[in-house]
Amino acid sequence: MSHLADTWTLTAQCPSRLGTVDVVTRFLKENGCYITEQQSFDDRLADRFFIRTEFTPQLTAFDAEAFEAAFADRAGEFEMVFELAAPGARIPVVIMVSRADHCLNDLLYRYRTGQLPIEIRAIVSNHPDLANLAEWHGIPYYHFPITPETKPEQEAQVAKVIEETGAELVILARYMQVLSSRMCEQLSGRAINIHHSLLPGFKGAKPYHQAYEKGVKLVGATAHYINDDLDEGPIITQAVESVSHADYPEDLVAKGRDIECLALARAVALHVERRVFLHARRTVIFER
Amino acid sequence: MSHLADTWTLTAQCPSRLGTVDVVTRFLKENGCYITEQQSFDDRLADRFFIRTEFTPQLTAFDAEAFEAAFADRAGEFEMVFELAAPGARIPVVIMVSRADHCLNDLLYRYRTGQLPIEIRAIVSNHPDLANLAEWHGIPYYHFPITPETKPEQEAQVAKVIEETGAELVILARYMQVLSSRMCEQLSGRAINIHHSLLPGFKGAKPYHQAYEKGVKLVGATAHYINDDLDEGPIITQAVESVSHADYPEDLVAKGRDIECLALARAVALHVERRVFLHARRTVIFER
Amino acid sequence: MSHLADTWTLTAQCPSRLGTVDVVTRFLKENGCYITEQQSFDDRLADRFFIRTEFTPQLTAFDAEAFEAAFADRAGEFEMVFELAAPGARIPVVIMVSRADHCLNDLLYRYRTGQLPIEIRAIVSNHPDLANLAEWHGIPYYHFPITPETKPEQEAQVAKVIEETGAELVILARYMQVLSSRMCEQLSGRAINIHHSLLPGFKGAKPYHQAYEKGVKLVGATAHYINDDLDEGPIITQAVESVSHADYPEDLVAKGRDIECLALARAVALHVERRVFLHARRTVIFER
Amino acid sequence: MSHLADTWTLTAQCPSRLGTVDVVTRFLKENGCYITEQQSFDDRLADRFFIRTEFTPQLTAFDAEAFEAAFADRAGEFEMVFELAAPGARIPVVIMVSRADHCLNDLLYRYRTGQLPIEIRAIVSNHPDLANLAEWHGIPYYHFPITPETKPEQEAQVAKVIEETGAELVILARYMQVLSSRMCEQLSGRAINIHHSLLPGFKGAKPYHQAYEKGVKLVGATAHYINDDLDEGPIITQAVESVSHADYPEDLVAKGRDIECLALARAVALHVERRVFLHARRTVIFER
Repeated sequence: MSHLADTWTLTAQCPSRLGTVDVVTRFLKENGCYITEQQSFDDRLADRFFIRTEFTPQLTAFDAEAFEAAFADRAGEFEMVFELAAPGARIPVVIMVSRADHCLNDLLYRYRTGQLPIEIRAIVSNHPDLANLAEWHGIPYYHFPITPETKPEQEAQVAKVIEETGAELVILARYMQVLSSRMCEQLSGRAINIHHSLLPGFKGAKPYHQAYEKGVKLVGATAHYINDDLDEGPIITQAVESVSHADYPEDLVAKGRDIECLALARAVALHVERRVFLHARRTVIFER
Repeated sequence: MSHLADTWTLTAQCPSRLGTVDVVTRFLKENGCYITEQQSFDDRLADRFFIRTEFTPQLTAFDAEAFEAAFADRAGEFEMVFELAAPGARIPVVIMVSRADHCLNDLLYRYRTGQLPIEIRAIVSNHPDLANLAEWHGIPYYHFPITPETKPEQEAQVAKVIEETGAELVILARYMQVLSSRMCEQLSGRAINIHHSLLPGFKGAKPYHQAYEKGVKLVGATAHYINDDLDEGPIITQAVESVSHADYPEDLVAKGRDIECLALARAVALHVERRVFLHARRTVIFER
Repeated sequence: MSHLADTWTLTAQCPSRLGTVDVVTRFLKENGCYITEQQSFDDRLADRFFIRTEFTPQLTAFDAEAFEAAFADRAGEFEMVFELAAPGARIPVVIMVSRADHCLNDLLYRYRTGQLPIEIRAIVSNHPDLANLAEWHGIPYYHFPITPETKPEQEAQVAKVIEETGAELVILARYMQVLSSRMCEQLSGRAINIHHSLLPGFKGAKPYHQAYEKGVKLVGATAHYINDDLDEGPIITQAVESVSHADYPEDLVAKGRDIECLALARAVALHVERRVFLHARRTVIFER
Repeated sequence: MSHLADTWTLTAQCPSRLGTVDVVTRFLKENGCYITEQQSFDDRLADRFFIRTEFTPQLTAFDAEAFEAAFADRAGEFEMVFELAAPGARIPVVIMVSRADHCLNDLLYRYRTGQLPIEIRAIVSNHPDLANLAEWHGIPYYHFPITPETKPEQEAQVAKVIEETGAELVILARYMQVLSSRMCEQLSGRAINIHHSLLPGFKGAKPYHQAYEKGVKLVGATAHYINDDLDEGPIITQAVESVSHADYPEDLVAKGRDIECLALARAVALHVERRVFLHARRTVIFER
């Protein structure tokens, strides 16, 4: 949904308990906030409650800090964690790439044309190849080569960029390097990866060639939060595209690229619009 | 979402005004009702608010009548119209058909296998052709022939069946007859029609042949509430399927049948799960 | 493509070699056969050629036997295997089921309404549950219970039905039993199975529950020829459907059912229209 | 299908007549050309035959001119028009734009990354806005302003660029100007336009706003060859995307942009791979 200039977003989750919606909506009413869109879901297997609310303050002066402080009291009773996002907030982002540019180009176009409410503060790569593309968009590009020996140092460099730019989201747009457990942990819940195939069975080297051998009729891509288990974090989006016998392995790779772009861009959009809730190994996603 | 045995559904709409969500959720909280799923939307162009809530009463005895009476007071302040649906409620339905059986067969299968929470009380047709199919499913079949001269009498017969069976929803599963304005009015908001093509430009006779002449690459179907303007009521679902040059007009008709089944079944499911809100000429639909 | 009453289909495959198309098309020309639709493909990795031709004889008397005999000579030079199918040919079929009826019902409807050019000669099951459904369609139903001890005898009973009915295609419409290697071999290339999930990683018990745990956003189905490796034969069709956090395991199962119907019906249609070519572990499919 | 370096493409069409395939395939055989992929179709309502053949010459020296000259004799007997395309041929293209850049950006990316076998020789616009984008890609940009009075002169300027660049294809990537009948005629069969909506009924001003008013659940785009009847030429591709009540008119426009990019890029790819055959008001498309 397109938003008016004064639409705030409140997201929260907590254990299931009578009154979980009321504690949010009553507070909003009492503070003169009109709810324009709201979705809540109770996961009865996990006994966990999730809510996302868009609202417009009816008072001329809306004091976000005061709002948060006051709401924290009530939320505390429900062990509720919550976040408030300002209208038009643009999440600071660092994008990590390797040599392939399809996902990066797609993200940059959506960024440049204002389709993604993000602010790309840096592009980090273990290769110099995509520096030109970054330059044209006026985004700093950091080339940090990596070898098995220099991995800890390289990751420290990356971490420094993430910290110094204040990035709240890291997008691994075909970064092709396995992050260390330590880095995975640091980025938990705020790093999105795109994985080359929907089919877990084709992990390992040359997945598209394996898929070709088997004669699959669909190729896919999965965007997920990273965790320690490479390519196995909580899923945000999945997408597929048809292929046929006339698609040789290189064609599968090409179609895979298209579908990777779509799945990643969609996942990033859902995340920055605060539509994705992470709990344990699963996500709850409130699509508009 | 699959439901527990004790999930009630409350749906409501009213003019936009501060507190529209709160009036619902506070009442539920006060009455010991746990909200398991909720969606609300404010249409800022229509200045209209819509909400759908699923909840499970935490009290052993839930008195629906008392609930409705008590809530009516509060809702009244917001000019809010609302409806409460009991767990496992099955909406009584009358299906109207002509000779084509594809949509009817599809609905009957979903009905027989418990996929649609409806109770088909009668099938009405202006032709005798589908009596066998009805019989096998144990559903009364009324054959009311129609001619231009007998139309008022025939519609009176149909209306009588609808009334006597207590049908809350009428499904026009390829009925192929234009209803009179009077009947459209009587059935306003509770009769769903399926229209043979997505493309308004191909109205009139032999739409699929017109589409063939133009070389379309997609055929579609639209399910909508009926209104006076034939095939132009508020849209509930639309679906499409690819076609190619190798599809002759009869193939387009066949593909159209498949897509009509899907669009109609989906529209009926959304309606009976009380996910469709009708306001003016548009619908608000809370998909799960 | 819908067909005229006199359209024959010739399918063939052979090793790649100069003149593979010419040997077919020249013969058709010389015999006064007009080609209405043709597709050929050379798999350059397998060095294998595939062709499917629809043609209408221009001579009043077309002698199929003489045609086959004469063409066999030329085809032999190319080590070409071929098949000729008469206009309107309906392939004799045996369907095997267990208790679930969704795929069977879908096939029966398409059969009854003439959408599938097959002739269902028998339905075989290890359970009595679906006898009524078979009876209503006037199709013999064989109930052959199975236990680990009686498996060889039961399979012999099944094989006898297949043989006596002259079935050229066996459809495993959720049969739920692992066929013996011997039976797999007997049915090689002429038995189509539907597998409950697109994702090879979720094989084993309760695949939909595993998928739920992982929070997948898509569920799928694969229709394939059976071979010794259970659920791993050459793929004919794959289909997917979106799911969300609000879909509990039982909802995934329900959505899986829908997608299984579609994938299986599509695979059967492709097979009986002689659009599927089997070579080694892969299929070549000429979609219309 | 990805191609070997030596794959030529031969496309042809002619009136239906016995021997239409044979005249092509026999010639190829006689000239030592191995057919790697072939599709033919006979439109029985139009009595017209279409064929597309990919082949690799087995002789070390393949003389295209001699091939064409020799084949022309035989083709003439069938009133067959044909075209031969060299391996790796890149069609010279001129792109026409106005202010919107979404389609242009999409085409430029596919061009830059080698996904489209075209050579963009110029970008022409009636506005200066997109000059930067062209410059970054190193493509000449011509700004020809237009007013009702200067339209003939402006079109003459455009025509001159098309001629001087040797463009074989003109892509109207949201050009937003109605071409004169004369220009339409000049560009007949070699200019592809993208139209903002699938629904012919919403022609005229603000189509997405009209669609919003009606509450459509799908928006679409159509790519077609231009002809005199604005937005009504022979269709190449159509695509759709879901929308909901939460999509305001500006959201419909945004989703429309995405789907326009996809439909246009797909149409251009089909055209330059010589998969589109134009005959009368319809197209025959041999998808791979």
